[in-house]
Amino acid sequence: MLFNEPRARRIMADQGIDALVATSPDNVTYASGYWAMSHWARPGGPQVYAVIPADGGAGPCLITGSGNLDLVVDGESWVTEAYRYGFFATRADGPEQLSPLDQRYAALLARTNHGDAASALTAALRDRKLDRGRLAIEETGIQPAILERVRSALPKAEIVSGARVFREIRMIKTAEEIERLRGAVRVTERGIEAALRVARAGVTEREMMNEFDRTVISEGGVPVSSMCLGTGPRSALSNCQAGERRLAAGDVIRFDGGVRYKWYRSDIARIAALNDPGERIRRYYSAIRAGAERGIEAIRPGVRTAEVFRITMDTVHREGIPHFERSHVGHGIGINNYDAPDLAPNSDEIIEEGMVLCVETPYYELGWAGLQLENTVVVRAHGAEPLTSLGNELRVQ
Amino acid sequence: MLFNEPRARRIMADQGIDALVATSPDNVTYASGYWAMSHWARPGGPQVYAVIPADGGAGPCLITGSGNLDLVVDGESWVTEAYRYGFFATRADGPEQLSPLDQRYAALLARTNHGDAASALTAALRDRKLDRGRLAIEETGIQPAILERVRSALPKAEIVSGARVFREIRMIKTAEEIERLRGAVRVTERGIEAALRVARAGVTEREMMNEFDRTVISEGGVPVSSMCLGTGPRSALSNCQAGERRLAAGDVIRFDGGVRYKWYRSDIARIAALNDPGERIRRYYSAIRAGAERGIEAIRPGVRTAEVFRITMDTVHREGIPHFERSHVGHGIGINNYDAPDLAPNSDEIIEEGMVLCVETPYYELGWAGLQLENTVVVRAHGAEPLTSLGNELRVQ
Repeated sequence: MLFNEPRARRIMADQGIDALVATSPDNVTYASGYWAMSHWARPGGPQVYAVIPADGGAGPCLITGSGNLDLVVDGESWVTEAYRYGFFATRADGPEQLSPLDQRYAALLARTNHGDAASALTAALRDRKLDRGRLAIEETGIQPAILERVRSALPKAEIVSGARVFREIRMIKTAEEIERLRGAVRVTERGIEAALRVARAGVTEREMMNEFDRTVISEGGVPVSSMCLGTGPRSALSNCQAGERRLAAGDVIRFDGGVRYKWYRSDIARIAALNDPGERIRRYYSAIRAGAERGIEAIRPGVRTAEVFRITMDTVHREGIPHFERSHVGHGIGINNYDAPDLAPNSDEIIEEGMVLCVETPYYELGWAGLQLENTVVVRAHGAEPLTSLGNELRVQ
Repeated sequence: MLFNEPRARRIMADQGIDALVATSPDNVTYASGYWAMSHWARPGGPQVYAVIPADGGAGPCLITGSGNLDLVVDGESWVTEAYRYGFFATRADGPEQLSPLDQRYAALLARTNHGDAASALTAALRDRKLDRGRLAIEETGIQPAILERVRSALPKAEIVSGARVFREIRMIKTAEEIERLRGAVRVTERGIEAALRVARAGVTEREMMNEFDRTVISEGGVPVSSMCLGTGPRSALSNCQAGERRLAAGDVIRFDGGVRYKWYRSDIARIAALNDPGERIRRYYSAIRAGAERGIEAIRPGVRTAEVFRITMDTVHREGIPHFERSHVGHGIGINNYDAPDLAPNSDEIIEEGMVLCVETPYYELGWAGLQLENTVVVRAHGAEPLTSLGNELRVQ
């Protein structure tokens, strides 16, 4: 399961929370396994929620538009109870002839239509006797007017911010999440390898990116417009999108970012060069590589994230870029590509087993190049286990 | 330009609005051309805004994280003024040696760091003397706490809901938008054709979908997990995601949905069948096809959207599905796949030249099949001009 249920129950108990209400696409899928297509495709539009009571006996449930009920049964949702709202026409004659899946779908379609999302959420909370409870409602995905209606309908409930609670729960990954993150990294690495196979003088960034995207799809991933690819001086643009620039001898090729794989994200970076990129690029790359590697070596349960930052930065400074500056040298990753914790100087988080972390040391110099190494690791009892498998060297081809 | 500026100025004048503030990824890109990767990749996370004053002399501007400034200059943004917040390290020595693009980027990086999004937005509004104005701030993309801070900092400003204003402006498309929507439809049609080329007994839905996705990428589109593909009885699941089911003789194959192309969306539907699907499927398809076609014939400027709904429904009822039910028979489409207006019974909108509309008549019967035809048209003075070019027939192969 994606949801770290033991951790969620412990955090709810510690903070006196009676129920979690997920409202963003990320957290609804995380908390329930339910992926409602239109919720993901149109952020800020369709309202979909997952209610997770602290009391396991009360039972979790989904709140969703009637038109999204098929994905409750035909998908990976482990929450099977749903409150629906809105009209949606699907004929379900002769249910005795339906498959078990279609019968479950027909049963959901036959349930009460609660009219709108606010009424459906209110009913779900009342049915679970949560109308006097302390509710951590994620403020990110619920429309403010709907939250106001729920607040008015449940005047005895105490509503607190849920976004920070989900962020805390998601910080420690389940085995299933780690497998998906491993898959996301693998797919991204194959995409980078495919793009580099066509890299030669005269090839455009876009042509390389098409190889990346097609490979990602063949490997089961989804390109989500968040892989940056810049060549030559364009590699210094941090978010560089593949364009029409043609590769030339001596160019740096910078990849940074990733894909989705079973809803989970990747974020890795690699540098290649077409022929020898020159002494200064090799020297600077060697410094940022050393920093990223020492950073990963420092990762183990009990270490402060700020300490990983310090070690990484000190290494880059010492190994050849004394003016290197960063606000962070990495971050957690999961169903979102910036999960907690941040590897930042003022972060007070402690590294724990089960975190999945990206460690990166990007250096951007306008008119020259962007250099970067970013790897992903899962924190085990003994230290960091890599999810990335491409070599760390500056790959010259 | 994507932004329908003359229409926006007219609507702002009519409603006494002094400035629009876009906050969602869709509306920021629509209003400015600026695409901030992390804003799109992590909805609810990074805060990016576009301020469009009614008084053209005051000048529009962007509010964005310092790490997103490269995409202001290296992209399609027609708004060049930006208020930045947050630390981001990019070395920019010797600006005299930089390219013009890098010089513009370096100039943005050298501007004041406003610390956070609320302060940057407040400064941008004050600099434009909008601190006593009527501001239509889109509530969808701004974090509620940030909106509160802006409200407190500008106590003399009147803040009204911006989402409905953008929805109204976006209803009438510019020439550039229509070209992108045409491209999105074309890419989707090529994807469907590619998927059908591999359709034969024993092929899985997923294998067909991979052909679709790879073709979309080769044609310049982005698959965004919103193309549904269901075969046999699975075609009756409205949001059916391609799975491991293998195609068999007599199966219906239902495609519904689309892709992104230059940020614009497609939403079309087609039905194919492997060998003869039988008399009832042919008869029902003929009814829903007649409805979708009569609906499009009814579209011209001045007609009520509710009238298009009525004509479409009446046709399907008369032509063979007397129990056909729908909440709508179509919708606008643009940078989002559900733009205004809806073709719905209680919609009071009037069709106007420049709208782009999807017209659809899906019929779902559990345990049997889902049948659907969905086309996209642009409204011209004389009536509907199709953007779709695939034939409307049930394609038997």
